[in-house]
Amino acid sequence: MRARDLLAAFPTITIDTPVSQAARLLAEQDLPGLIVIDEHGRPASILPGTQVLRLAVPGYCQDDPALARVIDEEHADHFLDALAGRTVREALPPRPRELPVTDPDATVLELAALMARTHSPLVAVMDEGRLLGAVTLQALLDRVTSL
Amino acid sequence: MRARDLLAAFPTITIDTPVSQAARLLAEQDLPGLIVIDEHGRPASILPGTQVLRLAVPGYCQDDPALARVIDEEHADHFLDALAGRTVREALPPRPRELPVTDPDATVLELAALMARTHSPLVAVMDEGRLLGAVTLQALLDRVTSL
Repeated sequence: MRARDLLAAFPTITIDTPVSQAARLLAEQDLPGLIVIDEHGRPASILPGTQVLRLAVPGYCQDDPALARVIDEEHADHFLDALAGRTVREALPPRPRELPVTDPDATVLELAALMARTHSPLVAVMDEGRLLGAVTLQALLDRVTSL
Repeated sequence: MRARDLLAAFPTITIDTPVSQAARLLAEQDLPGLIVIDEHGRPASILPGTQVLRLAVPGYCQDDPALARVIDEEHADHFLDALAGRTVREALPPRPRELPVTDPDATVLELAALMARTHSPLVAVMDEGRLLGAVTLQALLDRVTSL
């Protein structure tokens, strides 16, 4: 079994997508994360769901989640709205991290190692510079546990 | 909206659960991660799905996922079987990390900050030393994006 047998089409966003729209896409399509593509259609970043949240949560709250409690419930409920038109570009971490990207020949062990190493529940699959889709942790586990 | 409004019962494992069984639970119930409880029923560790994989992937493959390709496809497909009876206890990282645990009064902003900070798509909710359940990233996003 290879990446090509496990991959599925996966929605992408760009660095100009508003963070609030990215969060909605994640919620509505029940995705484990998002692939951010650059102007050439290649992955610029691959964000696990928790890192999409990171784009949306004020830094001081991440440094000390207890500080988030000083924000009253009404305002906390609408923290996504506070982002207004902020885009993924403005919220991405400055230094690029190792991207979980592989080719269609990767075995399930290679996919699992990439997910474990990069803490990413999805791996993008590229062939000759083209994004074919992604393999999710769920798809991988479904297959290896049913063999 | 508080953690108590978002939490749901969540299956738990113990440090004596075999890693292969943990992987099957994750796959079968489509969970974002697992809560490992100690003998007092308190969270000893909270593992995102990618970290459950980490328990199952040989260290040299995590250091360099390309090395995983030297394992042939047939053996790679069955990497979970190679674990045989290895338990979570033997595979957990030695130093405990900050656990994403909160109380029923936590606001959605606090929950989001905890998930972002600890890279965990689930937060355990405790009340007076008792585990009530967990809030998942998906449950949180579903609610905040539909407000």
